[in-house]
Amino acid sequence: MAHYSPSVENLINRMASLPGIGRKSAHRLAFHILSMDKEDAKALSEAILEAHSKTIRCSCCQNFTDSDPCPICSDLKRDKTTICVVESPRDVATFERTHEYRGLYHVLHGVYNPIDPKAMERVTLKQLFARLSEDSSINEVIVATNQSTEGNATALYISRLLKDTGIKVTRLASGLPMGSDIEYVDDLTLSNALRGRIQI
Amino acid sequence: MAHYSPSVENLINRMASLPGIGRKSAHRLAFHILSMDKEDAKALSEAILEAHSKTIRCSCCQNFTDSDPCPICSDLKRDKTTICVVESPRDVATFERTHEYRGLYHVLHGVYNPIDPKAMERVTLKQLFARLSEDSSINEVIVATNQSTEGNATALYISRLLKDTGIKVTRLASGLPMGSDIEYVDDLTLSNALRGRIQI
Repeated sequence: MAHYSPSVENLINRMASLPGIGRKSAHRLAFHILSMDKEDAKALSEAILEAHSKTIRCSCCQNFTDSDPCPICSDLKRDKTTICVVESPRDVATFERTHEYRGLYHVLHGVYNPIDPKAMERVTLKQLFARLSEDSSINEVIVATNQSTEGNATALYISRLLKDTGIKVTRLASGLPMGSDIEYVDDLTLSNALRGRIQI
Repeated sequence: MAHYSPSVENLINRMASLPGIGRKSAHRLAFHILSMDKEDAKALSEAILEAHSKTIRCSCCQNFTDSDPCPICSDLKRDKTTICVVESPRDVATFERTHEYRGLYHVLHGVYNPIDPKAMERVTLKQLFARLSEDSSINEVIVATNQSTEGNATALYISRLLKDTGIKVTRLASGLPMGSDIEYVDDLTLSNALRGRIQI
């Protein structure tokens, strides 16, 4: 016996297809939406459509934006000689929060993963290399992909392809996070921290 | 500096207003929606609107439904002499999954909470008492509110108001959940289990 009407079942399924939302959470979200005021439900629905239709990709850095080029790419005060390569648009926001980096970005929308051709189609590595060959002022590419197997493979791939171009390819330092206790740090992180030690 | 465009910021805020979704999850969901195909984003948006507009409350049991009375209230095979009072529509689905209960339901959409008059307005206790006074065939009310202070207060409130009506008011048993280890059970649950012990 179906416990919910088709429209509610559909809403639950749509919610459950979102990342990090299981069946139970999808139920909870769907019933929260049902108990919302009509205006709030409409506003939520429209927010999805509006954000989706207004958001385009910056033709330069591939980040999500509502104007092309995006505010960062068109900012004259930014250092145009450095590109920070990140996996997702969220990473750009994380970097911007630190107020430490003043260069440009390139959003990959994924990682280098040759065994999944469909995912590879979405990854903007091609656009990165095109951008680097067109713009001779760029002299450093910081590969800020995640510290995962795929993230490291992407960094290696980029560094190999740029080997003879004279562009410096760097990777974010791996080591102990701030506030960490050496006793509880995993072996790989500790090895990386030791290898990457700096003189004080 | 704003890191996102207003429409994306709006979507993040809408997502973060849903229950159990923090700022980080809201970011993740919003960016997932932005990277969806246009049709999928449209379908998600429409699912919200459609479920919200098609879903009404059953005039009898106050459960969410697309037809009034709801399938359970209009089912001739159900036992019309028993009403199970639950806090939310999700609880109805949970009961139905057990295939144990064949009576009717009443969905409170909240709990008895006299210090929050705004929330009390939404609670359908009034409709429950109206239903009980109109329908003389009902002879048992099972109060299946949560085992919380508010849930217990609601049960007490209902049982007091129905004291002289001849309607039996019962409460779900409290005790050890299946598969539990007595060593790890909290004191209150163990006391309840002891007090509610049954002869085998």
